[in-house]
Amino acid sequence: MRKIGVIGLGHVGATIAYTLVAKGIVDELVIIDKNQDKATAEEYDLRDTLARLDTFTKIIPQDYQALCDADIIITAFGNIDSIRMNGDRFGELKFNMQAVQEVAAGIKSSGFNGVLINITNPCDVITTILQQQIGLSKQQVFGTGTFLDTARMQRAVGQALHEDPKNVSGYVLGEHGESQFTAWSTVEVKGHPITKMAQELALDLDELDQQARRGGWLVFYGKHYTCYAIATCAIKLALAVLSDAHLACPTSVYLDQYQHYIGYPAVIGRQGIIELNPLKLTTAEQAKLDQSAKTIKEKLN
Amino acid sequence: MRKIGVIGLGHVGATIAYTLVAKGIVDELVIIDKNQDKATAEEYDLRDTLARLDTFTKIIPQDYQALCDADIIITAFGNIDSIRMNGDRFGELKFNMQAVQEVAAGIKSSGFNGVLINITNPCDVITTILQQQIGLSKQQVFGTGTFLDTARMQRAVGQALHEDPKNVSGYVLGEHGESQFTAWSTVEVKGHPITKMAQELALDLDELDQQARRGGWLVFYGKHYTCYAIATCAIKLALAVLSDAHLACPTSVYLDQYQHYIGYPAVIGRQGIIELNPLKLTTAEQAKLDQSAKTIKEKLN
Amino acid sequence: MRKIGVIGLGHVGATIAYTLVAKGIVDELVIIDKNQDKATAEEYDLRDTLARLDTFTKIIPQDYQALCDADIIITAFGNIDSIRMNGDRFGELKFNMQAVQEVAAGIKSSGFNGVLINITNPCDVITTILQQQIGLSKQQVFGTGTFLDTARMQRAVGQALHEDPKNVSGYVLGEHGESQFTAWSTVEVKGHPITKMAQELALDLDELDQQARRGGWLVFYGKHYTCYAIATCAIKLALAVLSDAHLACPTSVYLDQYQHYIGYPAVIGRQGIIELNPLKLTTAEQAKLDQSAKTIKEKLN
Amino acid sequence: MRKIGVIGLGHVGATIAYTLVAKGIVDELVIIDKNQDKATAEEYDLRDTLARLDTFTKIIPQDYQALCDADIIITAFGNIDSIRMNGDRFGELKFNMQAVQEVAAGIKSSGFNGVLINITNPCDVITTILQQQIGLSKQQVFGTGTFLDTARMQRAVGQALHEDPKNVSGYVLGEHGESQFTAWSTVEVKGHPITKMAQELALDLDELDQQARRGGWLVFYGKHYTCYAIATCAIKLALAVLSDAHLACPTSVYLDQYQHYIGYPAVIGRQGIIELNPLKLTTAEQAKLDQSAKTIKEKLN
Repeated sequence: MRKIGVIGLGHVGATIAYTLVAKGIVDELVIIDKNQDKATAEEYDLRDTLARLDTFTKIIPQDYQALCDADIIITAFGNIDSIRMNGDRFGELKFNMQAVQEVAAGIKSSGFNGVLINITNPCDVITTILQQQIGLSKQQVFGTGTFLDTARMQRAVGQALHEDPKNVSGYVLGEHGESQFTAWSTVEVKGHPITKMAQELALDLDELDQQARRGGWLVFYGKHYTCYAIATCAIKLALAVLSDAHLACPTSVYLDQYQHYIGYPAVIGRQGIIELNPLKLTTAEQAKLDQSAKTIKEKLN
Repeated sequence: MRKIGVIGLGHVGATIAYTLVAKGIVDELVIIDKNQDKATAEEYDLRDTLARLDTFTKIIPQDYQALCDADIIITAFGNIDSIRMNGDRFGELKFNMQAVQEVAAGIKSSGFNGVLINITNPCDVITTILQQQIGLSKQQVFGTGTFLDTARMQRAVGQALHEDPKNVSGYVLGEHGESQFTAWSTVEVKGHPITKMAQELALDLDELDQQARRGGWLVFYGKHYTCYAIATCAIKLALAVLSDAHLACPTSVYLDQYQHYIGYPAVIGRQGIIELNPLKLTTAEQAKLDQSAKTIKEKLN
Repeated sequence: MRKIGVIGLGHVGATIAYTLVAKGIVDELVIIDKNQDKATAEEYDLRDTLARLDTFTKIIPQDYQALCDADIIITAFGNIDSIRMNGDRFGELKFNMQAVQEVAAGIKSSGFNGVLINITNPCDVITTILQQQIGLSKQQVFGTGTFLDTARMQRAVGQALHEDPKNVSGYVLGEHGESQFTAWSTVEVKGHPITKMAQELALDLDELDQQARRGGWLVFYGKHYTCYAIATCAIKLALAVLSDAHLACPTSVYLDQYQHYIGYPAVIGRQGIIELNPLKLTTAEQAKLDQSAKTIKEKLN
Repeated sequence: MRKIGVIGLGHVGATIAYTLVAKGIVDELVIIDKNQDKATAEEYDLRDTLARLDTFTKIIPQDYQALCDADIIITAFGNIDSIRMNGDRFGELKFNMQAVQEVAAGIKSSGFNGVLINITNPCDVITTILQQQIGLSKQQVFGTGTFLDTARMQRAVGQALHEDPKNVSGYVLGEHGESQFTAWSTVEVKGHPITKMAQELALDLDELDQQARRGGWLVFYGKHYTCYAIATCAIKLALAVLSDAHLACPTSVYLDQYQHYIGYPAVIGRQGIIELNPLKLTTAEQAKLDQSAKTIKEKLN
């Protein structure tokens, strides 16, 4: 049977919990939040769906010990209001640096030995700390990282070229934050390299890169948080872990050369990060990756 | 192809829009909100999911004319903050009485001739007004009404008896509000009448009725709105319309004897309300229904 | 993660395997058949779907040892040609009595300790033998039994009354075979007892009972086997086990009074048969159940 | 609402009908077969699933007129026994050349004006004839063609490299038959060109090409037909049409230069073939495509 824990029931965590129940993906769902009333609210809003769904999910609120035999934990704690005031994902850093201690301790004490997928921002920094503090292997811990930003790049390119986003392949790499970048040398549209199409069609790739990077802010501006796309990304990763799907995608993974987590191509399966998938980047792209790593490093210190 | 419009993108409307996309239920989705920035935010949060879903949905924002050939419109506009301050679903009445004019005019002008499912509170009142103002038949318009409250009753009874909510059948009737009541004579648990079980097991049915009625407030208290259960109810009704499923369930339907909408057993299909399903109520239950109807009537005037 | 084994890859077993993969229900699927070429054929037909599905399933062919940590085994071995020649589900008895020894030995040797759902006919007889020979508890082993026949009764009643089959509740009990019967005292249509409706509408319940019993033969006559409805039943039961859904339904369960398995109301969850759900039958219905049990007993001896 | 017709209820057509019902994809399903008993058998096997599914589908048997307002028709008629005896997909040609007249006439008389997806073999030949005889536009008619063979290539490459088939992109082109070929210049594994990997890993691409081409025969040998992978391909195409997904994939499309249908990269949406997606082939690949076209042409004459 499938068991997943979600820690942090803000808009992202709650949307993930709801989707796991509504799609019948898990058999047992542990939900945890610092705010007891919020946890109870989500517990009952979810329980009240069960009479209207064909599937059943056992919902276990506020119980770190119940994570012991979970397959996956998704961490989505955070304080979105601090972003709103600072306009940067690192705005949450101070708040989340305290929360991460508590969450890591709770997970560690449960004896959890599955795969942890972190969403909490700044994603690469928090993922690095969670791995260190919980003591799970670097394989078992990863972050959603630029998997979301890549989806936004696919959307932005798709809109520009009147294409389904799924016809766009390729990678946004680096920090899940301002220093991220689209590795255009990896991007193809229906099998055609976009760098070649850009010349023919006078596409402004820098502008598209901005749209991917800033895509979330349009959502954030209108509703003060983003939840659906990030939840969908997290669930796709969770399913890849459950079914050992060997999903090739960018996520926040640990790179030895940087000694911390960063958005990079990897392959996801039952053990978490099955392997890295090093793509040949251009010199300029590699420099951007190094620069982005530096930004993460600074925030870690 | 399937086309649904969602009007009002608060937590409920947005959750419905997300679920329709995430489950690949519709081919085209029209989303409309008074707040342009909110509509754009939801549009982009949904578009950004498309690269991570196996299904595709065309998302059409802010376009009443696009409702012309929709199969279904779900109305979920409202101002939840006014409930928060007044602690009663009728707290929204004043705000929504203005909004309903605008929404009805927009729908009417589109030439829409499908089925309208109303969620906006006070549900029975607003459904009555929408039907009158848009001019669709009484068959084509109905409200979620006590379909949600019935789910909560199933949950409450299920919890009390350690049963899956789906093993509990029966109906909560009347106003989607304080004057609603569980028609215990219709309730069975795994095929056994609950009235008989209540004697044997010393079940307090009044207490369970309270839990169903007040179930939403626990959610509301903790997160200031409810969204997942109501969205799940609305989507189940929408699917019953699309597939002409002849789903037997309580919804807010027009009853001739009361001259307005009220929570009552009905059968849902392609035409909306296919038929009423009059169940034999006890004299006391019938009196409660009459009383509840009176409450709705007063608010209508 | 979810792991299911399917033993016997005739039309029923293969349809179950396909559905588990196509709906992304399981993470690992073990498929076993006496005919090595058939198993390889199904393995590759399933593997060839994986590039076109959003989900991934690990397919493990012909490996009894891989059942060791499976959550569920579904047995669907058999020789349908012998039914075709004899026109009775017991026609397969001789063939299957040999096969059951081999299958039971294989399962036992694997160390499997999950839930076994048997479909192989004669269902009640083979379920009884499997439980005895494998040595799993009577809770852990059950058969699809009259869960399928009940679906057919719901369909037949639904057709007669122009109702969705899901609006029809109630039970077909006894042998999954000719001595089965619809317990009309348990049947309701949209909450109305059918026995009362039958008088008002001049419904011939005996005729409807025949349609439920003989429903499969119409399918059998046209395509020489039945597969979709039985596969759908088995998968619904498997999901109830995986998610501990406490699904109330008729299945082939062990009754102490008869000392063998027979179609009877039960509740299905993680442990298999969570409990029986004894419904008050009429004297005539109880007599039919006793008579049906006798038929199964005879075949067992 | 969504409406699909399936013509020909052999293993492929029946599996498609079942999947459309089991996944709740369509609201109305028309099923047609020359063999009335077979059609009735499938009708009832499907109807008997409805009490066990959360979704509802209206099943309409043997009614060409009901295709009038269908969104899609999938043709899967044929006589598999003739393949078994001749070991070539063209073995069915003689039988199917007669059947195609009848089917085309039936479709034409219904006034159908949606998209037709042909599976019947020889796929490219029959698709060409269906388009001519029914008189739908070349956009509206296409065949599954090498979409299946491409899935098999992805599976074969995936097996060789221990990769998920979805990590393999690229195209099998030409006839859905012996003269097909993998256009290796288009194939990538997790973003890496396979031609380069082949050198490094000493991969035998000719052998993998054979496995893709002959993949179906392994299935065919063991169960005398193939059904699950082809059904999954057809349904993915049908969903792309319903939701206007602009799915980039190889299918059997009409190419002006050959004056008939052949497996080639295209984009699928509401109108059928939205556009071709010409990929730069090597000279050798282009020669193979020309040669394969010649083979189809010969069979057409």
